[in-house]
Amino acid sequence: MSEVLALTKALIERQSVTPEDAGCQVLLGDRLAKLGFKLETMVFEDTTNLWARRGSEAPVFCFAGHTDVVPSGPANKWRFPPFVPTEDNGLLYGRGAADMKGSLAAMIVAIERFVAANPDHRGSIALLITSDEEGPFINGTTRVIDTLEARNEKIDWCIVGEPSSTRSVGDVVKHGRRGSLTGDLVIHGVQGHVAYPHLAENPVHQVAPALAELSAIEWDKGNPDFPPTSFQVSNINSGTGAGNVIPGECHIMFNFRYSTESHSEGLIAKVNQVLTKHNLNYDINWTHNGSPFLTQPGELRAATAHVIKQITGNNPEFSTAGGTSDGRFIAPTGAQVVELGPVNASIHKVDEHVKIADLEVLTDMYTGILEELL
Amino acid sequence: MSEVLALTKALIERQSVTPEDAGCQVLLGDRLAKLGFKLETMVFEDTTNLWARRGSEAPVFCFAGHTDVVPSGPANKWRFPPFVPTEDNGLLYGRGAADMKGSLAAMIVAIERFVAANPDHRGSIALLITSDEEGPFINGTTRVIDTLEARNEKIDWCIVGEPSSTRSVGDVVKHGRRGSLTGDLVIHGVQGHVAYPHLAENPVHQVAPALAELSAIEWDKGNPDFPPTSFQVSNINSGTGAGNVIPGECHIMFNFRYSTESHSEGLIAKVNQVLTKHNLNYDINWTHNGSPFLTQPGELRAATAHVIKQITGNNPEFSTAGGTSDGRFIAPTGAQVVELGPVNASIHKVDEHVKIADLEVLTDMYTGILEELL
Repeated sequence: MSEVLALTKALIERQSVTPEDAGCQVLLGDRLAKLGFKLETMVFEDTTNLWARRGSEAPVFCFAGHTDVVPSGPANKWRFPPFVPTEDNGLLYGRGAADMKGSLAAMIVAIERFVAANPDHRGSIALLITSDEEGPFINGTTRVIDTLEARNEKIDWCIVGEPSSTRSVGDVVKHGRRGSLTGDLVIHGVQGHVAYPHLAENPVHQVAPALAELSAIEWDKGNPDFPPTSFQVSNINSGTGAGNVIPGECHIMFNFRYSTESHSEGLIAKVNQVLTKHNLNYDINWTHNGSPFLTQPGELRAATAHVIKQITGNNPEFSTAGGTSDGRFIAPTGAQVVELGPVNASIHKVDEHVKIADLEVLTDMYTGILEELL
Repeated sequence: MSEVLALTKALIERQSVTPEDAGCQVLLGDRLAKLGFKLETMVFEDTTNLWARRGSEAPVFCFAGHTDVVPSGPANKWRFPPFVPTEDNGLLYGRGAADMKGSLAAMIVAIERFVAANPDHRGSIALLITSDEEGPFINGTTRVIDTLEARNEKIDWCIVGEPSSTRSVGDVVKHGRRGSLTGDLVIHGVQGHVAYPHLAENPVHQVAPALAELSAIEWDKGNPDFPPTSFQVSNINSGTGAGNVIPGECHIMFNFRYSTESHSEGLIAKVNQVLTKHNLNYDINWTHNGSPFLTQPGELRAATAHVIKQITGNNPEFSTAGGTSDGRFIAPTGAQVVELGPVNASIHKVDEHVKIADLEVLTDMYTGILEELL
């Protein structure tokens, strides 16, 4: 069995459902310690984080990732038990196979190969591993970054192992992500009986034109790196269940995914302006999940593209689409950040899997990028 | 203890939570049989109905009512146990005191007094009592009316004992009711991740402008007997609960209370027109709860108004406001129908009660109307 496959399996066997690490970081740390990495385990609340570094000089190349996985859901809906890594027809099945224990294994094996060949590489190699990427991301990467910044420890280049690929490994690299802003809105009306509408104020009727207006707004046009900012209602709930009661409140949750053409303060101001214009009596709670980030062309993008072209024969697509990632916490420090990992088609689903051959390809890519940069 | 108070208490003690009759109709029937009424118990599915008639000639004067009550809710929220009739400070407490066991008792005592004084009254006296007014009203009054119509048995004048009064007994008489039409609407979109809005179709966004339009429509202007037709959304629900998922469907329940200026077919057509205009992919289920009815000025309204004026010194207000009642099943046969009963402030609530003195006043009113008409 190949090294990267064996390590991926060992990680899948550890049931590290977020925010549990379940011993994954110890497994990784033991391998890194043998290579001369200095290990620092940072526990914040329920989250275990590992900061590992080999070398003390700049530039610092960092692999970032997470050991936690999303829950498997009902295990009997899976072809194979979700925490028993199982090979079938060239695929490796198991929760976390693609998101992102395969990437973690590839990072470790790539580092081992690179250090064996280049024991005196320039700069430093680091790993930033958390067990809180799939959860509320409060005690994970963001707090490790805070710790590093407080002592002025800098990352120059960072590859996040998120499954960025769509059809074959390396076809898509993420060089940024949109910002994410969530609003929890409550419209206050006056409850009543449908037979006495003059005594009630229906919050659904009141909010409908405001929702129509918000849904139709062009928030920005995007730019070459980002699609236009998108507003989406994720939940709306109002009513007692009874058919003869005018509801007293309407609860609406919505989310912005926003480009670098907008900023959160502007989006918040515009939403408040629309709600106020429609004379709504409302309360709103905002959660800013992350600002957009973008890595401009530079050494990291160049090395990544070059290595992928060498290995696959194709140029990767640089994209900012998709959900958020911990890259949003690392990029604001000034680091160049890209995300490169396996195909993401099965992540967060039953029968999550990764192509076994892709684990080898990904290991080669990570090794190649290390060789180009350090 | 007065006769009407004693009978009201005896009825409250019987826990006739809809569609149970719990022996109430036997109690009433025994009293009526002694007066020479012919009793006919009609059981349809879970519902017990009583049709009782004294005399075989026209005109037929009918009291209509129901023995079932709505559930009490948690008994410990009541001042007194809901099925233990309790006098306190001039009030009689208990579930059904106002809706409408007090009215039933007043009907029986009024008939007893009237028949004692007028054993050879003209025409006929009838009672139409159901145990399915607070429930789905499928096996109650509507099926008794079907039975009567099938054998060409006609009601000329009908007093429904629903609690019509607002401040003092007899201040408001209902001479009709609006129609009620309910729509269950499902908007079909395409579910997706908020980060990939171009792959989804958000049904909340799609329906918002249609809802805004429906909420703003003037369906009609009403008329001297009816307020304008009212459209009210009672429930709207969409979303998985998760903040990052664009919902695939949006469920909306709405209700029309409509005047005699509109009809159900027209309302349905207009809603479909608006939904179609907004290019919605939808399914809708309609429930027609009842057509509007109206009793024009005539012998029944005149007698009712005259008796109330004699007893209270005030002219009653004739109104069509409020919820539906079983009058909607009786009026289409050509009968004149009014609703006259106690103050409705406490109905369907905890601590339901009726003023004990009002039971006597109501008995006098029912007796007086019988005397005027038969």
